[in-house]
Amino acid sequence: MPDSPHIVTAALIVIGDEILSGRTHDRNIAQVAAWLGIQGIRLAEVRVVADHTPAIVEAVNSLRARNNYLFTTGGIGPTHDDITVDAVAEALDVGVVVHPDARAILEGYYETRGGLTEARLRMARVPDGAELIPNRYTGAPGIRHGNVFLMAGVPQITAGMLDALSGTLEGGQKLLSETVGCWVQESEVADLLRQTEAQFEGCQIGSYPFWREGKSGANFVVRSTDAEELAACVRELARALEAMDRPAYPGGIE
Amino acid sequence: MPDSPHIVTAALIVIGDEILSGRTHDRNIAQVAAWLGIQGIRLAEVRVVADHTPAIVEAVNSLRARNNYLFTTGGIGPTHDDITVDAVAEALDVGVVVHPDARAILEGYYETRGGLTEARLRMARVPDGAELIPNRYTGAPGIRHGNVFLMAGVPQITAGMLDALSGTLEGGQKLLSETVGCWVQESEVADLLRQTEAQFEGCQIGSYPFWREGKSGANFVVRSTDAEELAACVRELARALEAMDRPAYPGGIE
Repeated sequence: MPDSPHIVTAALIVIGDEILSGRTHDRNIAQVAAWLGIQGIRLAEVRVVADHTPAIVEAVNSLRARNNYLFTTGGIGPTHDDITVDAVAEALDVGVVVHPDARAILEGYYETRGGLTEARLRMARVPDGAELIPNRYTGAPGIRHGNVFLMAGVPQITAGMLDALSGTLEGGQKLLSETVGCWVQESEVADLLRQTEAQFEGCQIGSYPFWREGKSGANFVVRSTDAEELAACVRELARALEAMDRPAYPGGIE
Repeated sequence: MPDSPHIVTAALIVIGDEILSGRTHDRNIAQVAAWLGIQGIRLAEVRVVADHTPAIVEAVNSLRARNNYLFTTGGIGPTHDDITVDAVAEALDVGVVVHPDARAILEGYYETRGGLTEARLRMARVPDGAELIPNRYTGAPGIRHGNVFLMAGVPQITAGMLDALSGTLEGGQKLLSETVGCWVQESEVADLLRQTEAQFEGCQIGSYPFWREGKSGANFVVRSTDAEELAACVRELARALEAMDRPAYPGGIE
């Protein structure tokens, strides 16, 4: 019987009216999720909240307490609708201060771009006690305070901040996954999936149907922290599908 | 002074390990948000939760109490990982029953597709007291119970269910929006944005920066329930940008 895996979790808060209006299609959930997976951290839950201080405070305090890490995206720019720093400081019950290193970074960045105005200096404000996360694209840094990480909303800038954090966070056992695709109605193999999952301890099987060119198919994603159990479960699932005369496509059907 | 607008809100719970792993990029948040906007309903908050009953129950009970409507996507298929109906029934404190109309729909759909098996009959199970939401693509209906709406996870099927619900829900005053684009660093106009917003009651201005071909730009999205205030705010914003010698692009820069 395998040891109980060491699980490390994170939550993500996507902050922004533009996501809730449908105007902007979020791209940060998937990129943060994938990056966390590589760090050995599981994204356990996500909330999308409005540019509204009480909503941010509530989400921060609910999620930071029950996850190892909490990430936010959005609302750390220079304009009046950028309220994340103040809201997070309120949630953490600390003041807001100008971080001297952030000020120096912004002075350098804006030296040839019109100078460090009062609006731009807003981007040097952090919850008291915070460290900075480098931003190699546009100067204004991300912010880390304990287990809370504040990142930009623009996906490319978020990506740079995640890259700067790569390998710096303690992860747990990675959740491994393999996909098996099959041209089958998932309802035809529901019992088979349930039975196969039950045979392999610590394995979960997710079933994701699709319809294409009038045919039904599904991708079955097997997840486990144990590489051997995972491989055995995938082999058994493929064998069982083949036994029904349903060819199994390793890697899934794209 | 305009009357206080009648606001109707909704929340959305996206249910699925595949979103939290980063494997699948969510497309339902944006489509549900846009559809709600057309119905005069504001998407106030979104949560993405795992295929885990306690997580779903908690989210359902938090969100249905404080919004006029609650939508979920995902987890209403025939396989063992489809637990939304049971979890929502638990949250609503009702039993789970087979809905006779859903059974009849599935009997018809599967008549030429191998018959209504026990696994397929799972898709006729609903929280006791529910009505059905038609699914014109794959038979298995969505489910409405009071102010809670359970929809499919596959975006095309979700779209069909939303279409079936169009015009059937009571909305409030629509949140209107107009976008003005400008090739400007948002930090240059932060004061202008704040002052313009303050001049027009009930208007909010969101600032969404981008960087392209080495140039900084931003789209400014003005939102209001009052069409006249909105138009006046947009005119003033465009005038103020032009006065800085920064051409304003009506409709925004894509």
